[in-house]
Amino acid sequence: MMMLVRLNMRMALAALCGGVLLVTLYWSRCGDLAHRPIGSVLSYASPDRATNEIECSINGEYSVACRRDLDQIYVPFSFLHKYFEIYGKLTFVDGTEKFEWSHSYSKVYHPKKKYDPRGTFTTFENYNVEVRDRVKCISGIEGVPVSTQWEPRGYFYPTQIAQFGLAHYSKNITEPPPRVKIIDDGDKFLEKWIVSQDAVLTREFDSELKSNVLRFSTSDQASSQVWLKVNISQDFVLSMDLQLRPNSSMTVILQNKDKKETVYLHYVTSTQLIYAQEDHTYYGIGVDKKWRRITRDLIIDMQKGWALQDRPKRKSPRNKFKISGIILSGSGGVSDIRVSSSSHTAHFHAAARWLRAAQRARGGWPVPARRRVAPGVPDLRPGWHSAMSQGHGISVLCRAYYRSGDAGYLRAAQRALLLLDVPSGAGGVKALWMDKYVWYEEYPTQPPLFVLNGFIYTLLGLYDLHVMEGENSVSLAKKMFDDGMLSLKTLLPLFDTGSGSFYDLRHFTLGVSPNIARWDYHATHVNQLYLLAGLDPDPILINTAKRWEGYMQGKRAAHN
Amino acid sequence: MMMLVRLNMRMALAALCGGVLLVTLYWSRCGDLAHRPIGSVLSYASPDRATNEIECSINGEYSVACRRDLDQIYVPFSFLHKYFEIYGKLTFVDGTEKFEWSHSYSKVYHPKKKYDPRGTFTTFENYNVEVRDRVKCISGIEGVPVSTQWEPRGYFYPTQIAQFGLAHYSKNITEPPPRVKIIDDGDKFLEKWIVSQDAVLTREFDSELKSNVLRFSTSDQASSQVWLKVNISQDFVLSMDLQLRPNSSMTVILQNKDKKETVYLHYVTSTQLIYAQEDHTYYGIGVDKKWRRITRDLIIDMQKGWALQDRPKRKSPRNKFKISGIILSGSGGVSDIRVSSSSHTAHFHAAARWLRAAQRARGGWPVPARRRVAPGVPDLRPGWHSAMSQGHGISVLCRAYYRSGDAGYLRAAQRALLLLDVPSGAGGVKALWMDKYVWYEEYPTQPPLFVLNGFIYTLLGLYDLHVMEGENSVSLAKKMFDDGMLSLKTLLPLFDTGSGSFYDLRHFTLGVSPNIARWDYHATHVNQLYLLAGLDPDPILINTAKRWEGYMQGKRAAHN
Repeated sequence: MMMLVRLNMRMALAALCGGVLLVTLYWSRCGDLAHRPIGSVLSYASPDRATNEIECSINGEYSVACRRDLDQIYVPFSFLHKYFEIYGKLTFVDGTEKFEWSHSYSKVYHPKKKYDPRGTFTTFENYNVEVRDRVKCISGIEGVPVSTQWEPRGYFYPTQIAQFGLAHYSKNITEPPPRVKIIDDGDKFLEKWIVSQDAVLTREFDSELKSNVLRFSTSDQASSQVWLKVNISQDFVLSMDLQLRPNSSMTVILQNKDKKETVYLHYVTSTQLIYAQEDHTYYGIGVDKKWRRITRDLIIDMQKGWALQDRPKRKSPRNKFKISGIILSGSGGVSDIRVSSSSHTAHFHAAARWLRAAQRARGGWPVPARRRVAPGVPDLRPGWHSAMSQGHGISVLCRAYYRSGDAGYLRAAQRALLLLDVPSGAGGVKALWMDKYVWYEEYPTQPPLFVLNGFIYTLLGLYDLHVMEGENSVSLAKKMFDDGMLSLKTLLPLFDTGSGSFYDLRHFTLGVSPNIARWDYHATHVNQLYLLAGLDPDPILINTAKRWEGYMQGKRAAHN
Repeated sequence: MMMLVRLNMRMALAALCGGVLLVTLYWSRCGDLAHRPIGSVLSYASPDRATNEIECSINGEYSVACRRDLDQIYVPFSFLHKYFEIYGKLTFVDGTEKFEWSHSYSKVYHPKKKYDPRGTFTTFENYNVEVRDRVKCISGIEGVPVSTQWEPRGYFYPTQIAQFGLAHYSKNITEPPPRVKIIDDGDKFLEKWIVSQDAVLTREFDSELKSNVLRFSTSDQASSQVWLKVNISQDFVLSMDLQLRPNSSMTVILQNKDKKETVYLHYVTSTQLIYAQEDHTYYGIGVDKKWRRITRDLIIDMQKGWALQDRPKRKSPRNKFKISGIILSGSGGVSDIRVSSSSHTAHFHAAARWLRAAQRARGGWPVPARRRVAPGVPDLRPGWHSAMSQGHGISVLCRAYYRSGDAGYLRAAQRALLLLDVPSGAGGVKALWMDKYVWYEEYPTQPPLFVLNGFIYTLLGLYDLHVMEGENSVSLAKKMFDDGMLSLKTLLPLFDTGSGSFYDLRHFTLGVSPNIARWDYHATHVNQLYLLAGLDPDPILINTAKRWEGYMQGKRAAHN
């Protein structure tokens, strides 16, 4: 009887919709469009029921095995994952299994207060630039990352170096102060070094460092060493003042606590970036005979050595390894040896120093790698500039100025503005939308691409400089920021897909398929817009941020 | 043993992705992004298996009851339908049940040959304007539809009238010639009319029609009638020459073949559009005492009478009703009474005549209804013009000129151009994108909306006129078409959502949420682009058409 009733209902439905004969309509469009469910969807199923397999024909193109229980069709998530690019995982909470469906895999950070150029840079406290695969290693000489993103030999990518600096600057603010263990400072902390027979170790006052240092000298014999046995777990950022004569080195020994595995990190007097063979990784720290302070994240240095040998990344090596020794070889001096849980300030300043030193006469940081940006667009040839490098560089330099008071950093930041006013065709980074709205190009191609996130990062650099120059100043930075904000607020809607955002506007400038931002870039857009909404009350910013955040939970713009 | 292996695999996955403890990752993003399946997705299920219910938490917002079988999660289609707005139906093919998943509900028509203004208008042979709910009825005097779309009292909407004309013009080309049954032509076909005692019926020669006609006269008594009993099934388009004195009428009787149900359609000497009470529907055919030819789709006339009384639409009334009689009352003449399966030419010419007669001095067809277009935009006040009306009007008039050779139609089409060059703010329909690209506005709001489909229809009108004027002519229509095509090819990418299309660019001009085209409008865009790709070899047209068609099968633009 029930079945009969159901059948009649189906026929009625089919009649109403003008359905094809022999077809039972279930969820076809009939009259009004369906809307997103509000609240819970009722359960049609009961536990432990038998379901029949039923073939689902997907758009008449291929088939997927589904299940059927009475009137309900069940579609396998493995298919939905691929078809809609949604994500899911099984979780166990209080002994109950649950399936968690996620529309996106990224996270939005709502700013807690107005953005301040003296504070964290956007959400960069969550960035770990150096662990990225496209970072070859941290250079031993400059202490900044070396990129392999578009050039496998490795090159200094100013954007990446600046991000490294900004991430560490931000972490330094948000994280608790590091644990610092002084190993040997020549004064209060003195370690007992083991000196092989033909080697020499002395403690003496150094007039340059104005403190006691260790002076060492070993013979040409491989066994001739000065070494210190330590047993340090948990913290892995080693720093020291180091002075090496030619053919000298400082080696750190790491040991796996579980396995019989020893790793050697050699910091050597060489200009070679990195070299690795089996358990030995070598970082050139230059051939300068003067004192230098080196700060190394040993775990990063170890992992990059492995990566160079194509060994797989390991999970949480920080828990598995310990520092077991430091070996000095050749001749030179060391002082103020410390191991800390982090040394964000040192990394930040390394980035700031690099940016100041590497800046060219036009105020730019040329990128020495060829960049294939998009099919149909001429490559950017080595030496190109990026508005994002310029903007990020300014953000780093402003913070370095704020921390150090060194006006040289501020002047460097001001010099970095110049290229933002030079058109892409003339070696700069400026594009115009419809001959009207300025856009600072992350990739200054011709025709332009109008990348969104890089543009906003440039605006933040301009804002940083403007504030550092004095918020009431009438400056070039302020004018450039205002011009850029006008462009952004005008063109922002063009990046809205109705269910996400476009990474750039190449579909407009090249007439190609649009380049949709993957969720992590989309989340970056949302984070950036929330930040800007705190600086500019125009409702387009906050409204777009909110709508775009909704897209990450599966909401969509309405259709007509 | 198998379970253990699976568990270990899960743990390994969790380890690789850096998963949360106590979480088993299934389809999370880990490393590379997932891509759409090519070909079949393998079945993980076997028939008739028990599945457990498992709660699926949707983006942490609400829950849906899913099923689980080993590692596979099955999601109910009723939820997917609402969440993703996809469609599905169960079909029975050769005794096997199958579930058909459809990404969209609309259809694309690939043009078989190059568009020709003398031929069908786009895909309008598939349109049935008069059955739409927003058509109040077909007016008895003009024979054209009356719209209630934005004004429930009903008004002549030039776009709708033109579409009515173009649909019938196109059907006339694509459909086989109509079956025509001559009921009474005063010559070869003579019916036996029943004349009540106090009524008079004569056959006489009419000098105006130049044929024999029936002259009738009845008394004031309700029972005084001249009537004809017929029994006509299947075909319902009645036409006749009719001349009525005041207070006269022609009534058609329709009978339901299954049920005891009789419907009376009264065509009366009145200027009232329509009036309905129970089984009687009245159409005013005017008070002009001259001969007119009326052509009525009786089923449409019946349905509109029901709709006026809020009676539900009935399914396939053409199969259930028959014409059982024609009653003449008052006094007047009738001649050449026919019933045919269709009369597309008559309907087309009614639209063309209306457009020619209703055109104003500036060449426009003002819309007499207030139009609320979008929140935040001032209403269009009665008397506004639509570029789509102008373009469609031109398309109708060009075809009327082609069919009739009457140059008055061509001149009317040319006059219709004028408003396309008048800015929206000055009573016209022209907008400019970024002060640069002309756009013919379907809804000439300020700020402009840049509706896509209406713009392309306008371009087709321009193309039609250009061809009718001679393809080698240098004319205003040609210049306007070229300007418009340049705008279209430039701005088309801005309508691409990466998974569908925007209906307009209100998100850009108003800064609001984008207005996504529902699938039938999207299909219209695709059909229009395929048509234009036959007229213009620029690859943006054909490439966009193909990509947009793919969106209807669930394909998407790539993300980075």
